[in-house]
Amino acid sequence: MTDRTNRCFRLRRRPDGLVTTDDLELVEEGIPALQDGQALVRTLWLSVDPTNRIWMSDLRGYLPPVPIGAVMRGLGIGEVVESRRDDMPVGAHVTGMLGFQDHCVADDAQLEAPLTVLPDPLPAPPQALLGALGHTGITAWLGIEDICRPQAGETLVVSAAAGAVGSIAGQLGKAHGARVVGLAGTTEKCKHVVEDLGFDACVNYKDLDWQEQLADATPDGIDADFENVGGEIMDAVLNRMNIGARVALCGMISEYNDYGPGQSSTVPGQRAIGQFIMQRATMTGFLVLDHADRFPEAIGALATLAGEGKLRWTETVVEGLESTIDALNQLFAGANTGKLLVRVAEPSGA
Amino acid sequence: MTDRTNRCFRLRRRPDGLVTTDDLELVEEGIPALQDGQALVRTLWLSVDPTNRIWMSDLRGYLPPVPIGAVMRGLGIGEVVESRRDDMPVGAHVTGMLGFQDHCVADDAQLEAPLTVLPDPLPAPPQALLGALGHTGITAWLGIEDICRPQAGETLVVSAAAGAVGSIAGQLGKAHGARVVGLAGTTEKCKHVVEDLGFDACVNYKDLDWQEQLADATPDGIDADFENVGGEIMDAVLNRMNIGARVALCGMISEYNDYGPGQSSTVPGQRAIGQFIMQRATMTGFLVLDHADRFPEAIGALATLAGEGKLRWTETVVEGLESTIDALNQLFAGANTGKLLVRVAEPSGA
Repeated sequence: MTDRTNRCFRLRRRPDGLVTTDDLELVEEGIPALQDGQALVRTLWLSVDPTNRIWMSDLRGYLPPVPIGAVMRGLGIGEVVESRRDDMPVGAHVTGMLGFQDHCVADDAQLEAPLTVLPDPLPAPPQALLGALGHTGITAWLGIEDICRPQAGETLVVSAAAGAVGSIAGQLGKAHGARVVGLAGTTEKCKHVVEDLGFDACVNYKDLDWQEQLADATPDGIDADFENVGGEIMDAVLNRMNIGARVALCGMISEYNDYGPGQSSTVPGQRAIGQFIMQRATMTGFLVLDHADRFPEAIGALATLAGEGKLRWTETVVEGLESTIDALNQLFAGANTGKLLVRVAEPSGA
Repeated sequence: MTDRTNRCFRLRRRPDGLVTTDDLELVEEGIPALQDGQALVRTLWLSVDPTNRIWMSDLRGYLPPVPIGAVMRGLGIGEVVESRRDDMPVGAHVTGMLGFQDHCVADDAQLEAPLTVLPDPLPAPPQALLGALGHTGITAWLGIEDICRPQAGETLVVSAAAGAVGSIAGQLGKAHGARVVGLAGTTEKCKHVVEDLGFDACVNYKDLDWQEQLADATPDGIDADFENVGGEIMDAVLNRMNIGARVALCGMISEYNDYGPGQSSTVPGQRAIGQFIMQRATMTGFLVLDHADRFPEAIGALATLAGEGKLRWTETVVEGLESTIDALNQLFAGANTGKLLVRVAEPSGA
């Protein structure tokens, strides 16, 4: 290859609120010559997820905080452009924690986790493998199948219903025959969720009377909650739980920007937790990373539904690695519909 | 019987904070002549429980709020002193929602739930049947056996460890071989919990450095939490959960006095709920009332442990029906150790 320069975002400090260029600095660095056992991966797509913000804080998370000075952790798909390892030939597609950068040196001894080589040809477009047929779709599947377990006649509520995970979770709930009610932050998203994705209703939580709308949309109460948001939205749902309700706690995006530096936090707190006693309800937190052994089952189920026309998804694409900070902040502003992706480079065959 | 006067506490308004005589008024009323199908029960003991405070509010609870003007709902044990029903002969002991009053007319058509006739002779002192071998002991047993499931090598934390439920829950945890750490509000209670009840440690949450003490007492993190308190204490426990931790949400006494009139609440909120995601943890709320079918199993297990010297309990007795409001407020001030009871009358045979 000719270009031996790598652009990467290095974490300079832990953000307080939205992420700025003082927190994540875009720098250009030389790419060293490869050693045996290394391959050079060019990033094609980066996945932008709420959890990126967690990894930048040093609150007690499920992975170690990204060290100050390190390249920002991030999931992506790339192609191998140079190789000195047999399992990663030039041209192969790989996925894993490529980081917020143009190029990643695939060295199992240096990366937090080995990258995964994808089948050739790819079973789906790379964007889908980072979304509905990848970790976000699998996340939705796990929360619905293992925790929410919605049944016909029951009511499932999904917050961040137009997001990458929520949009899939709600459709899976419909496939089980439940009444599915979404919560989203714009009229357009609510329309998309109902008209394109088939939810029974979707409440715009920015409407002044959203709590009344939620009550109207869940006349029989709420049996299961696929929770992506936390805060006031979650409390409103908890206050309408039925006896024996199940909450799949997938995310709490409303509070991640309150994770400040130095393990500080200004999270306002959940005020309706007592309802878990009153309604004998259960809440289970979960992480897709724990369930690698079930990814094939999940992807198979999702692909089958997609083939039957029962699973649809959309993407919001931001162009260029340099736009990654903006993309991350868009996520917290709710600017995206469906899976939010950064297109870092075109495939070399294109 | 000669005395045809009944003293009873009637709910005049929903309390805001501690309960006052403006909320619960002690009145004297005549007792009507019994009809067929009725018995007159003289209250011997009343159980004073945190949940009494919930029933006085109109926040969304597990039982309907006590109506304004009604006799305050409360669990007790009494003896039948007059009867026009065959299943409740004079002299029989009965238990159930006698209410905060000297006498209860046992009429299945008028009471919220029928009273239960106890075996003759009583299998244990009546106080124990309202405590360790009654609903509080069964509550502890359900939360430990079904939800916390502590194992040897694990760490179980119990808040309100010197209370009626917590004291039993911790001893059940010890019987499973777990390390058991309590939280209580005085040095004396902590001493009692460790020296008399056999907990491995007990932290006084009123000490300035209680969070450090909790960390020191749980060096391997926390695998299970029997939660009676909520608020800051619960958050501190959640922040030390291990992966896969289980929380049995039994009570949140720290917030009940924040349940104001008109469905208002000034609950500060739980700020560490995100840890359920990070640690893939589960929280399950539960109520003893749901599990009547398992009471015999629970009481059998508790009585067996007691017989083996592995289960001890203590009581705090307040004298006289007129002291019931004070007793309830004592509960929220943490003035009691073990089961808090009001002795309303001596048995007629005494």
